Amino acid sequence: VVLGAQRESLVMNAEEKKATAYHEGGHALLSVVLPHGDPLHKVTILPRGMALGVTWSLPQERHTYSRDYFLDTICKAMGGRVAEKIVFGHLNSGAANDLEQATNIARRMVREWGMSESVGPMAWHSQQQVFLGEDLMTQGREYSDETAKLLDDEIAKILHDEEQRAHDLLSKHRRGLELIADSLLEHETIDGPTVAKLIQQGLDEAGVDERLDANVLGTPE
Amino acid sequence: VVLGAQRESLVMNAEEKKATAYHEGGHALLSVVLPHGDPLHKVTILPRGMALGVTWSLPQERHTYSRDYFLDTICKAMGGRVAEKIVFGHLNSGAANDLEQATNIARRMVREWGMSESVGPMAWHSQQQVFLGEDLMTQGREYSDETAKLLDDEIAKILHDEEQRAHDLLSKHRRGLELIADSLLEHETIDGPTVAKLIQQGLDEAGVDERLDANVLGTPE
Amino acid sequence: VVLGAQRESLVMNAEEKKATAYHEGGHALLSVVLPHGDPLHKVTILPRGMALGVTWSLPQERHTYSRDYFLDTICKAMGGRVAEKIVFGHLNSGAANDLEQATNIARRMVREWGMSESVGPMAWHSQQQVFLGEDLMTQGREYSDETAKLLDDEIAKILHDEEQRAHDLLSKHRRGLELIADSLLEHETIDGPTVAKLIQQGLDEAGVDERLDANVLGTPE
Amino acid sequence: VVLGAQRESLVMNAEEKKATAYHEGGHALLSVVLPHGDPLHKVTILPRGMALGVTWSLPQERHTYSRDYFLDTICKAMGGRVAEKIVFGHLNSGAANDLEQATNIARRMVREWGMSESVGPMAWHSQQQVFLGEDLMTQGREYSDETAKLLDDEIAKILHDEEQRAHDLLSKHRRGLELIADSLLEHETIDGPTVAKLIQQGLDEAGVDERLDANVLGTPE
Amino acid sequence: VVLGAQRESLVMNAEEKKATAYHEGGHALLSVVLPHGDPLHKVTILPRGMALGVTWSLPQERHTYSRDYFLDTICKAMGGRVAEKIVFGHLNSGAANDLEQATNIARRMVREWGMSESVGPMAWHSQQQVFLGEDLMTQGREYSDETAKLLDDEIAKILHDEEQRAHDLLSKHRRGLELIADSLLEHETIDGPTVAKLIQQGLDEAGVDERLDANVLGTPE
Amino acid sequence: VVLGAQRESLVMNAEEKKATAYHEGGHALLSVVLPHGDPLHKVTILPRGMALGVTWSLPQERHTYSRDYFLDTICKAMGGRVAEKIVFGHLNSGAANDLEQATNIARRMVREWGMSESVGPMAWHSQQQVFLGEDLMTQGREYSDETAKLLDDEIAKILHDEEQRAHDLLSKHRRGLELIADSLLEHETIDGPTVAKLIQQGLDEAGVDERLDANVLGTPE
Repeated sequence: VVLGAQRESLVMNAEEKKATAYHEGGHALLSVVLPHGDPLHKVTILPRGMALGVTWSLPQERHTYSRDYFLDTICKAMGGRVAEKIVFGHLNSGAANDLEQATNIARRMVREWGMSESVGPMAWHSQQQVFLGEDLMTQGREYSDETAKLLDDEIAKILHDEEQRAHDLLSKHRRGLELIADSLLEHETIDGPTVAKLIQQGLDEAGVDERLDANVLGTPE
Repeated sequence: VVLGAQRESLVMNAEEKKATAYHEGGHALLSVVLPHGDPLHKVTILPRGMALGVTWSLPQERHTYSRDYFLDTICKAMGGRVAEKIVFGHLNSGAANDLEQATNIARRMVREWGMSESVGPMAWHSQQQVFLGEDLMTQGREYSDETAKLLDDEIAKILHDEEQRAHDLLSKHRRGLELIADSLLEHETIDGPTVAKLIQQGLDEAGVDERLDANVLGTPE
Repeated sequence: VVLGAQRESLVMNAEEKKATAYHEGGHALLSVVLPHGDPLHKVTILPRGMALGVTWSLPQERHTYSRDYFLDTICKAMGGRVAEKIVFGHLNSGAANDLEQATNIARRMVREWGMSESVGPMAWHSQQQVFLGEDLMTQGREYSDETAKLLDDEIAKILHDEEQRAHDLLSKHRRGLELIADSLLEHETIDGPTVAKLIQQGLDEAGVDERLDANVLGTPE
Repeated sequence: VVLGAQRESLVMNAEEKKATAYHEGGHALLSVVLPHGDPLHKVTILPRGMALGVTWSLPQERHTYSRDYFLDTICKAMGGRVAEKIVFGHLNSGAANDLEQATNIARRMVREWGMSESVGPMAWHSQQQVFLGEDLMTQGREYSDETAKLLDDEIAKILHDEEQRAHDLLSKHRRGLELIADSLLEHETIDGPTVAKLIQQGLDEAGVDERLDANVLGTPE
Repeated sequence: VVLGAQRESLVMNAEEKKATAYHEGGHALLSVVLPHGDPLHKVTILPRGMALGVTWSLPQERHTYSRDYFLDTICKAMGGRVAEKIVFGHLNSGAANDLEQATNIARRMVREWGMSESVGPMAWHSQQQVFLGEDLMTQGREYSDETAKLLDDEIAKILHDEEQRAHDLLSKHRRGLELIADSLLEHETIDGPTVAKLIQQGLDEAGVDERLDANVLGTPE
Repeated sequence: VVLGAQRESLVMNAEEKKATAYHEGGHALLSVVLPHGDPLHKVTILPRGMALGVTWSLPQERHTYSRDYFLDTICKAMGGRVAEKIVFGHLNSGAANDLEQATNIARRMVREWGMSESVGPMAWHSQQQVFLGEDLMTQGREYSDETAKLLDDEIAKILHDEEQRAHDLLSKHRRGLELIADSLLEHETIDGPTVAKLIQQGLDEAGVDERLDANVLGTPE
């Protein structure tokens, strides 16, 4: 039997701090470059509750959300994990919440909101509620295994595509990602306009002639 | 981790108001042009409870409902989502309730009312009730995966066909849809006869020589 | 969102009354021409509880029931739905109870009473009871998906065959069906011998030289 | 809707009495000619509880039961249904209990007692109990669908084989069956030795030169 | 309906006593000749609780158990059933407990202890516990049907192999088995060393030149 | 029936002590040679609670864990079982806890942490929680059997690969393993640096010219 005492504290060592800076940096960078999500408010690597860092967005007054909004939100959620993979070459367990969030959005797109072409205009998710009076204790799915496979494939496709998109965008903005991570390690918290400025600086340093249309509000503090 | 504070209010911005006008306009237009559903009473983009807009029909005194009634009702439910797709080119999460309603009708057509040729005169839905005394806690389906697939396919076919029909009708009445949406943005609520009048005006403007047999009661206020 | 206020009353309009007359007429006609079921007592289109009309049979003193009894009973249950389809060309939701009753009999024929050649002398339905002491909360079926498919196919075959038989008999007695429906619309309730008389009259008017062996008790009132 | 009032009494009409005489006669005849089951005590067509007739056996002092004992018991259970089929050409619902009993024995032979060659020395039935501490609410089977199919096939084979054996034996003793049924209709209850005597008389009348080794105790009263 | 009164007592008739002597003799013989199981203490055909006879082993002080220990234990459990089959040519229901015990050990070998080459170093059995906080009411297996089949096949293979081994060993020691059964019928209870002595005597009488390495403790009383 | 009295104590015999020394020696050796797991603190063959021996690691302050950390932890868990297999040539039931721990980590890698290339960035494990409000009593998996198979295969692959890696490392350090086991049998408890020293000594004695980069803290006591 292999045992080990567990210690609990949120003091990060240097290596974890750096990993967290790139992880949150990935979320923050994508928040700014993706046009359809909520704009970036600020990003921090000060631990908060269970999280080692937080990327805060500013949800706009919306009552319904477009397919593009959900895809960008999934892409942003992938940003932390993908940034670490690009920079350090490995995955770690810290992205579990991000994956859960991304998977749940993808599931609802496919099963509730009819946002998959192959599945079509159908709500597969809450049939149990509908017949609740009849099937009070019903459980498990009622649809066929082939339908379940179709739903699985569509959910998987959305998640794979957005991970790939996160990878492409973070690779393109690799220099900007480094500048954001460095800035987070120095200041611990930076605001959206500053992140946008660093992304632009990264493009400039990398010799990319492109003007960023940043998804942020306000100007750097 | 990506976080964002959620605000709750039902004040719509201009873009949402326009999207809602086309969404409800789609429901309302189909209510008027489809002959077998309940006639249109009025349509509004004043938020109400969870909904951003409402299309009110006038259910007639009926005790049983025909296959055509259900198909037209599903087609109407698709109208909001399809109108937005035609006009703005994208889907959003606001049609979740419509999809749920449409799916449930399609499910009952196939599983309770014997309205699918391929499935035939069979009630697959409530066997659990029947043997309730015996199988008090029974759950999950008892039929085979192949039967489940047959039911899934029939339900999907109905939904796909009605989405296509909604698409064809709204494309044909594209000008009428615009007139209804504009009228809703101006007046917020319009009655059934007015919707019928605008659809006819749309046909006239589009040079279509056709007299609409409107499914409404009364005359414009 | 598409909404509509629901009104509840059992006052039927003329169209519904006619549909109900043919629906109950179909049940009643088959009750009389099928030899193995319970004889017809009377038929009415006066609403009763949830039902728009009722066909009353006179169950004989029996303790066990033959395969033919069940097949005729399923055929009778199909009679209402099939009559409407033949006369009006469409299906409606009013036959849901009939389908449920027919499906349940077919299920028990196959799963409890060993009345399917392909399935054979086997009781698949209540194994859970038998091992109740052991598997107190058992749920779902224990048999294989292939066995489930075999049971599904046999149940479906019985129901399809009886629907076809109902269709053939009602087509042959089309004139009698009309006479019964007309009589129901005039008198609202007619007794079994009167139904038998109208069926014979229908055969005579259609030039069919056949003496009906009516499954009724007594003589017309 | 097709309705009918249900009457409950156990007074049988002549047709049912005759059917019951052949049904119980079938059980009784097989009890006597099958060597491995419990010997026949008496048989009656006086209704008793839910049953229209009863065939009483005399269980011997045994603590374990052989494969042959179970096969003969299943064959006897098939006897009522098969006798009616041979004589009247149809099946009825009265054999439901017999089928349930036969199916349960066949299931336990295959799943608990290792009595199927193809399934082998394995106990598939009560794994849930064994791990009860762990899987307190476990339900449904844990084994694969292919294993479930193997069990189904073995259970079905036993039942089909025994029905066939019942058919062959009752066909051979057709005259004896008639004599037993006639005697039951006359006396309502007859004892085992009398049944044995009638079977021998049947063989003699049919010109079969065979001395019956009857599975009964005592001599005719 | 076929009924029979049940009597309960544990007085065995001569036939049952003989069957029990061979059944327990089979367990006892294998306990002595198999090297990896617990050594035989004594064997009896005096009924005890639900059992007609008991074979007592002497568990050694062990804290973990080897694959060979489990295989020998399964083989011993098969011994009773196989001995009856060899001697009397049929199976009976008395071995149900033995089969359950053997199946459970085989299941745990495959699903908990990683003792199947094909399945490998994996614990499939108690995943539900692990996620108990999350899936409080989880039930049924989570793994695929193909994995379930793999587990079934491995469990079945172990049981078939050990039944075959029991058959081979009891065939080789057929004379010894007879001597043990005879001794049990005479003395009702015999100790391990006596069983070992009778096995050796059986080998000698059968002309097999082999010295038994008996798995017993002590010498004959 | 085969019975045996169970005795409970944790006094090990010589054979068990030796097996335990190699089992814990395997865990300890891999703890030291694997670079990504927690460093070894000490190892003991003094029984503790249910365990015959314990290998203690020193968890570092970490908040997230890398893929390599989990792989090394699984490999270490395999070390006890593999060491016994290499030295004694057989498996025993003592590794059940190790297998459970290893399987659970592999399951979470694949289903929660997105650490399998084939499965990808997806969280399959806790969908039930997400829809808890809706599917309060939901149970069983919702995904298809093919997806379940994909997850099974990935989990199995990780476990097989790590067992193979444990086998390769322990074979290479066979002499070191013997030295550690001998030392444990003599001293019962040894610390991490001592284990590291013995591994180096083993390499030297085996003529392997390699300097071990030991994953331990401090120096031998």
